[in-house]
Amino acid sequence: MSEEEGPDHEAAIEPAGRFSQAERDAVYRAIYERRDVRNEFLDAEVPRETIMRILDAAHHAPSVGFMQPWNFILVRDRDIRSRVKAAFAQGVQTEAQVIAPERRALYRDLKLEGILKAPLNICVTCDRARHGTTGLGRSLQPNTDLLSTACAVQNLWLAARVEGVGVGWVSIMRESDLRAILGIPEEIAVVAYLCVGYIERAYVRPELEVKRWARRLVLDDLVFDNRWGTRSTER
Amino acid sequence: MSEEEGPDHEAAIEPAGRFSQAERDAVYRAIYERRDVRNEFLDAEVPRETIMRILDAAHHAPSVGFMQPWNFILVRDRDIRSRVKAAFAQGVQTEAQVIAPERRALYRDLKLEGILKAPLNICVTCDRARHGTTGLGRSLQPNTDLLSTACAVQNLWLAARVEGVGVGWVSIMRESDLRAILGIPEEIAVVAYLCVGYIERAYVRPELEVKRWARRLVLDDLVFDNRWGTRSTER
Repeated sequence: MSEEEGPDHEAAIEPAGRFSQAERDAVYRAIYERRDVRNEFLDAEVPRETIMRILDAAHHAPSVGFMQPWNFILVRDRDIRSRVKAAFAQGVQTEAQVIAPERRALYRDLKLEGILKAPLNICVTCDRARHGTTGLGRSLQPNTDLLSTACAVQNLWLAARVEGVGVGWVSIMRESDLRAILGIPEEIAVVAYLCVGYIERAYVRPELEVKRWARRLVLDDLVFDNRWGTRSTER
Repeated sequence: MSEEEGPDHEAAIEPAGRFSQAERDAVYRAIYERRDVRNEFLDAEVPRETIMRILDAAHHAPSVGFMQPWNFILVRDRDIRSRVKAAFAQGVQTEAQVIAPERRALYRDLKLEGILKAPLNICVTCDRARHGTTGLGRSLQPNTDLLSTACAVQNLWLAARVEGVGVGWVSIMRESDLRAILGIPEEIAVVAYLCVGYIERAYVRPELEVKRWARRLVLDDLVFDNRWGTRSTER
């Protein structure tokens, strides 16, 4: 027991429970079967208890300095979602211009959102000054609060998957449009706009892979040893 | 079947498999029992197969435009880790100055890294120009590539947990120091520096909560309906 860890802290440390093979398989299955859903949403309402379970999973993401900087705006109102969809439509017009000309036809054919098809949208935000403007772990890497919020999105996504609920992240719109439509104050960052609803079917591989937008990279090519660009001979 | 979805795409859509109650419980358990580990690392080597399983989970995170912008630098070399630890020590000196004076003693007492205690460190980076400088989903929200990489970190963390492997994210150091020590090129962003190793014990609640740095916020207070600051009367 080190000096700074009094007995009260020691009592809060317990044997880390092992996960059975079945439990491990379940977690890997959720990770591998999670999809970015755009078109497969069903109309059925997701009950509030289910949504709160999914949000509680998000709320148990890691956060820098235990900052928990996130908020969740549950958008069901159809008029509001229609305005978001209009912001998306404008976003696609703008973005299409920076897509390489030879890929533009494919880009136009892709289904990139389920804003109205999904019965629920969730806007995930980050209150950058939740515990003051600087804080533990954030003074030298100020974006870690945004990264923490992205970790919360991933928890949300995995929890949704095991509940039979699909999630699609829409990023082709201006943050300023979302801010205006949802009344989000200037000091709050918009991290993710998610379309959420039950799904019965899903792509077996990422939709952008199936539709040949991009290929799955080879993991081994992405791993270095000790320094950038270096590979150990021990492999 | 819509016009843009030819039969080859349809074939790639299958019934979304349901998760059993046991599988759901396993995923929620991993989410709730994941900890930011600083001091409980064991010396035991994590086998390469286990590391690659964990990294493959990370590699199956969502990414904007299926960009997969991440790389993973596996840092085992003790000299390199010692240099990172020195960068951290300097970071703490700097950060302590911006911590509120009345919390500075507690800050100094916290254990905030396991750089040398963990046998493995993993630096997770983001290649911001992997498929060109602009791309699907990124032209209007350019930081989504960094957020995707944070989602990968969360997958890594959950996969590690079910493998009995603890992870701690260290952000109290300058990105420029990490870049210099690990030879990371200017155009590559450093997203996370992780300490990784087997653990036998873990905090039952987040360490910063146990040590009274911050409290768990009430989820209900973080959820709005339709607009920022608004709560539905239907709740």
